[in-house]
Amino acid sequence: MGDEQVDAAALIAGMGQRARAAAGVLATMPSAGKAGALRAAADALRAAEDAILAANAEDMAAAEAGGLSGAMLDRLRLDPARVAGMADGVAAIAGLDDPVGTLVSESSRPNGLKLQRVRVPIGVIGIIYESRPNVTADAGALAAMAGNAAILRGGSEAARSNRAIHGALVAGLSAGGMPADAVQLVPTTDRAAVGALLAAEGLVDLVVPRGGKGLVARVQAEARVPVLAHLDGINHVFVHAAADHAMAQSVVLDAKMRRTGICGAMETLLVDRAYPHIAALVAALAARGCAIRGDGTVQAMGYDAASEADWDTEYLDAIASVRVVDGVDEALAHIAAHGSHHTDAIVTEDTGVAERFLAQCDSAIVLWNASTQFADGGEFGLGAEIGIATGRLHARGPVALEGLTTYKWVGRGNGQVRG
Amino acid sequence: MGDEQVDAAALIAGMGQRARAAAGVLATMPSAGKAGALRAAADALRAAEDAILAANAEDMAAAEAGGLSGAMLDRLRLDPARVAGMADGVAAIAGLDDPVGTLVSESSRPNGLKLQRVRVPIGVIGIIYESRPNVTADAGALAAMAGNAAILRGGSEAARSNRAIHGALVAGLSAGGMPADAVQLVPTTDRAAVGALLAAEGLVDLVVPRGGKGLVARVQAEARVPVLAHLDGINHVFVHAAADHAMAQSVVLDAKMRRTGICGAMETLLVDRAYPHIAALVAALAARGCAIRGDGTVQAMGYDAASEADWDTEYLDAIASVRVVDGVDEALAHIAAHGSHHTDAIVTEDTGVAERFLAQCDSAIVLWNASTQFADGGEFGLGAEIGIATGRLHARGPVALEGLTTYKWVGRGNGQVRG
Repeated sequence: MGDEQVDAAALIAGMGQRARAAAGVLATMPSAGKAGALRAAADALRAAEDAILAANAEDMAAAEAGGLSGAMLDRLRLDPARVAGMADGVAAIAGLDDPVGTLVSESSRPNGLKLQRVRVPIGVIGIIYESRPNVTADAGALAAMAGNAAILRGGSEAARSNRAIHGALVAGLSAGGMPADAVQLVPTTDRAAVGALLAAEGLVDLVVPRGGKGLVARVQAEARVPVLAHLDGINHVFVHAAADHAMAQSVVLDAKMRRTGICGAMETLLVDRAYPHIAALVAALAARGCAIRGDGTVQAMGYDAASEADWDTEYLDAIASVRVVDGVDEALAHIAAHGSHHTDAIVTEDTGVAERFLAQCDSAIVLWNASTQFADGGEFGLGAEIGIATGRLHARGPVALEGLTTYKWVGRGNGQVRG
Repeated sequence: MGDEQVDAAALIAGMGQRARAAAGVLATMPSAGKAGALRAAADALRAAEDAILAANAEDMAAAEAGGLSGAMLDRLRLDPARVAGMADGVAAIAGLDDPVGTLVSESSRPNGLKLQRVRVPIGVIGIIYESRPNVTADAGALAAMAGNAAILRGGSEAARSNRAIHGALVAGLSAGGMPADAVQLVPTTDRAAVGALLAAEGLVDLVVPRGGKGLVARVQAEARVPVLAHLDGINHVFVHAAADHAMAQSVVLDAKMRRTGICGAMETLLVDRAYPHIAALVAALAARGCAIRGDGTVQAMGYDAASEADWDTEYLDAIASVRVVDGVDEALAHIAAHGSHHTDAIVTEDTGVAERFLAQCDSAIVLWNASTQFADGGEFGLGAEIGIATGRLHARGPVALEGLTTYKWVGRGNGQVRG
């Protein structure tokens, strides 16, 4: 290991030990105490608006001088409305139901031993993110409300903004009675710190990457600790023969075009060969400004050809690959071969076909007669989200407070022995 | 990569693809269908008793010739009672409640979208085990009953026994309507196959190691796929000042001495300095044949000294480290510093102290007035167990059918778009 890596490992080890100690306090903080601390943090963020905007102006100036792209600059930029939104978000998290302490299951054994599974915090959560400084407040508040200590590592271009936000957040949390180490910010933008965080087995219980595919791929490849994430959202809408045409058109247009850059956007449209309005549906999508890359049938309608790679591509843009399939089985086979287990939908009036699709489609989120763009913690009623997970263990789909907890077994006896 | 690794990777890739296809069928098999197939497999195991015992006799002869230890020979040995026990175990798993399809949560959104979280199988589960051939039947049946395809990799010393058991199991499962690839056995004892299984991201969704610490440590160190396991069971019993003496003695003797070699056995006894019967308690343990390694107070009673390493040691033997602590806080601090998050217990008549211990002790299983040797899926009413997990995500403590499932989000709408 180079000196840099040794230093980073020592830095993260120290932060991890302080986080573990804070997590011990957070684990048994009453819900009202955590909520009060979060509301104090929201107030502190509002009060620190000037300092946060000043720090952000410095980050923006440096980013512009460094030639960052317009999209990245927009993600980095804060204004009074965005600071207020951040504070409101933290206050909203304080209003969510606290999963900690709730019962997962309960039983009484024949020998009289009373067993419960009780929700408890996971412990220490590392969050690695890019240029959006609001993640500092959102992710820190979500982790802490679920009783976890957080170690945050934001993008270097947002370092000043993150320090200002983190300073206000922690001042508020501390004033509200949380340990100061409940939410820590890695004080260096040295990339070795990310490696150390990903290698911190026993110190960091879970890492959540928040950002583009490059970040997520690196985290998944390097991590020695569990990761909650999604890499791709190659989402499908399958329009079945028995779909209502107006509904199909409305769902497909929303799924693809409402916002093309989000992970819940449709990337591939699958249409049943027996659907009577294939041409009209594809034309409606094209008329909305969506580039079409189709299979043979679609090409015969005058659209561009999809290459094999198109079926595996997350465009995040106004482009759709379109394939005509023979019924729900071929649609399911296509999704199994090319999907990313994120969000897939069917449009049909046939309940039997719909239920078969919902049962057999192996994705974190499966929808019937609804747009894939609902794939979002807020839309699912979770009040917030730390991210969307496409792994198979622990938590899938939108993850909020409950997904940031685990359980333990609690047994109460009166002297039972196995004998 | 050497040729051996290339071959192993290709072998596991092929098995993984067949397992994924089988998992697709298993995922939507009705509970009664899975249970029927398992009962057919139990019958097939009973019918194959002669062939299984003949194969086992060959393994035993080779193991004896190879100089295996008595304990390993005992784990490897099958007899008619053990074969019958294996068949009964498979039939018992068929009788367990199927978690697949059960609701985790349900809600209706203001826009009319109806959301459910529904339990589904994890997918493909790799199980890596050592000399006990019964794991072939137990683990395969548990995985399949929860709708998962299993890839089994047993110890080389049990290869003939495992092939015979696997052959009977799969013949029964197939006759009962399950895909033949529902439970596959890695056909080579080449160690590279274990490496390939641990590296099979995207093909294997979870690996469960079943065996000694060496195996678990290797799996945890090498795995690129999620692992469900426990490495150590450094379990504590804390006898509080307000413990009932007869109960304390009975719980401590059972926790340490009932079976010393199981992961739920107590390794360290913590006694409150204010407990009036410290000497009698330690003497009772010693009188049962347990070697005592104590702190200064215990040494002053005439026992051997514990070294610093003793507090971090899982003896799995008739040895206990014993420390006198100042109250529940020092007990909790000791467990936090030296425990392995497996199973820890308190004995006390003081409800407030007990509840504090249960809330603050950060282990998969925490018990009040009961022996740590209850740490077992059967004792917890799960009907079986694939293992005990001390990680923090997905499933903790004894893991059976429910822990071998995950969930997906199912949304049913009538044309909802985000707009």
